[in-house]
Amino acid sequence: MSRLVVTYRVRAPSRDVAAVAETLALEQSVEVAASVVRDDFVRDEVMGRVVGIARVDEGLHDVRIALASVTTGHEVAQTLNMLFGNSSLHEHVELADVEFPDDFVARFPGPRFGIAGLRERLDAHARPLTCAALKPQGLPADRLAALCRDLVLGGVDVVKDDHGLADQAYAPFAQRVAACQRALAQASRETGRPALYAPSLVGSPAQLAGFARVAREEGVGMLLVAPALVGFAAFHELVTSVDVPVLAHPAYAGAARVAPPLLLGKLFRWLGADAVIYPNYGGRFAYTRATCEAIAHEARRTDGAWKPMLPVPAGGLAVERVAELRGVYGDDIMLLIGGSLLMAADDLVARARTFTQAAHAAAAS
Amino acid sequence: MSRLVVTYRVRAPSRDVAAVAETLALEQSVEVAASVVRDDFVRDEVMGRVVGIARVDEGLHDVRIALASVTTGHEVAQTLNMLFGNSSLHEHVELADVEFPDDFVARFPGPRFGIAGLRERLDAHARPLTCAALKPQGLPADRLAALCRDLVLGGVDVVKDDHGLADQAYAPFAQRVAACQRALAQASRETGRPALYAPSLVGSPAQLAGFARVAREEGVGMLLVAPALVGFAAFHELVTSVDVPVLAHPAYAGAARVAPPLLLGKLFRWLGADAVIYPNYGGRFAYTRATCEAIAHEARRTDGAWKPMLPVPAGGLAVERVAELRGVYGDDIMLLIGGSLLMAADDLVARARTFTQAAHAAAAS
Repeated sequence: MSRLVVTYRVRAPSRDVAAVAETLALEQSVEVAASVVRDDFVRDEVMGRVVGIARVDEGLHDVRIALASVTTGHEVAQTLNMLFGNSSLHEHVELADVEFPDDFVARFPGPRFGIAGLRERLDAHARPLTCAALKPQGLPADRLAALCRDLVLGGVDVVKDDHGLADQAYAPFAQRVAACQRALAQASRETGRPALYAPSLVGSPAQLAGFARVAREEGVGMLLVAPALVGFAAFHELVTSVDVPVLAHPAYAGAARVAPPLLLGKLFRWLGADAVIYPNYGGRFAYTRATCEAIAHEARRTDGAWKPMLPVPAGGLAVERVAELRGVYGDDIMLLIGGSLLMAADDLVARARTFTQAAHAAAAS
Repeated sequence: MSRLVVTYRVRAPSRDVAAVAETLALEQSVEVAASVVRDDFVRDEVMGRVVGIARVDEGLHDVRIALASVTTGHEVAQTLNMLFGNSSLHEHVELADVEFPDDFVARFPGPRFGIAGLRERLDAHARPLTCAALKPQGLPADRLAALCRDLVLGGVDVVKDDHGLADQAYAPFAQRVAACQRALAQASRETGRPALYAPSLVGSPAQLAGFARVAREEGVGMLLVAPALVGFAAFHELVTSVDVPVLAHPAYAGAARVAPPLLLGKLFRWLGADAVIYPNYGGRFAYTRATCEAIAHEARRTDGAWKPMLPVPAGGLAVERVAELRGVYGDDIMLLIGGSLLMAADDLVARARTFTQAAHAAAAS
């Protein structure tokens, strides 16, 4: 059976790492305790499996986990989900590497042009290619086009937009791309050497499709897109729909350190989420109570124009904590119990009733 | 003029923080040195502006920067770009908060239902709402539907898919959603109480649209989507196209610690990027030379089925470093010079020529 072999770098002492690794394998696959998995197919073909633990340093280990390919559906967003969906929220885990199995590689063709294709298009062999950026943003399209012309006259192979250029009022995408591509083509004719202009595409999936159409109509030879900014799956969908090389930009790819109250509380609400799940304190994740309260606070603020968003504290919640959480958050929450409710699958209705009664009772207290 | 006021938590000693803040304001707006900005409009209306610095702790400061709304185009992906595009790659910077101006709030309506709308739909007032998850993945649709039924009979308000459920072979989306929604509706009729089923939508933008259509046809009352997984802009586009409440999941939202060689080298290549820009060592970002070499190594591996992807080291590269970089990376790279080329805008052609000649000469050496 096909599996992705994923390496996680885990901060844990040697005596604990085996248990931590097992927990990680469950979190990134079935997301329940092993005891809840009573189905043979799920246990043998779906559940993640620890295949190696190697000590890197004092308290630091590389844990290798084999995840079943079938869980990814061979789709980009879901693959990210299986690689690092929940464990990205664990302070002690870093996603370090992944080995894709053959069926995966067959399904994703990778770069369509790559190094050889780019060299071919630029007729530039056995030397480094050169690239320069059009900036600063705020300049109108004709000024950017003039810069583009100068750079090509100077011999630059690829002229890219600054990644900050999107579809702003001062240099709208269609206008900028037309002007810059024409300037590039003209300068390239003058030097007698090929050059490529790579406009920056930033926007929603529908906008990206529209921008790609404009670029194609203008004869643009390359595109600049930041996968972490537009979303990995949207990036991949775009790549497979265009017939020119794509230059990836790392913008937002380090989005390491967005404060959780901002990301989960304020920004997800900005986007229109009506309710937001977040890792509750005292559960499987390391968020502090203060962080959780701050997320809930952002979600439910009433001092602005947006409707309050419902906080959904989750992650290892058990029935016994219902009253406590009501004390902390009040009643404008949704209590989410996952695995612990399924522990006693034979009596699920009864356990669910205990849970919901605790929630209802809490309101009365 | 409308501006977003963004708070960054910056690790820097008191004596340096003013300069670090100015650099940050430039990085997140015009992305060139202030001396390169010679245009009045750009300087006054586009360039980021430091509006406050507050000491939090020894070597830790909150830096408030006003970013022009016009740079965002009032679009989601570009807003992320302006908030934290490049600075997400800076080890010393954390995105802590943002205050949206009125024009921004007017353009983004936020949650369409929110807490009150959810309570209304569930006819559940003045008590915590309850939620439980269908899992583990690997179970067929009818087994998940049976769990769904039991949970509703037990009084649960919202039954959500495990966020790991996507469109896998063992419980395809359409089949699972039909079965679970029917089970929920039947159980809800039996208890006489409303309940909502929130299936998990994970996939590319086109797939998300298809899943939403299926959910609507089945009469599903809520959706579960992870913005960080599907992409913020794709999430927002989906939210504005459906007429049921949306529950946000934090999967991948902590994607703090993806190793750069994996993220930028291997994963971006997997998605089909032909070339990848990354922060070079010794520039504006803190990546080590070893990290950069590892990114280039992953990008150019020839031991697999994928075409080599072109490494594009960038971020503060100057002409003087061309020979050095060729020594480190060899010639299968693209050298990207941005701001430093524009320093002498009057003589851009000549400076560009110096740059490209250095690259060409390096090849001959």
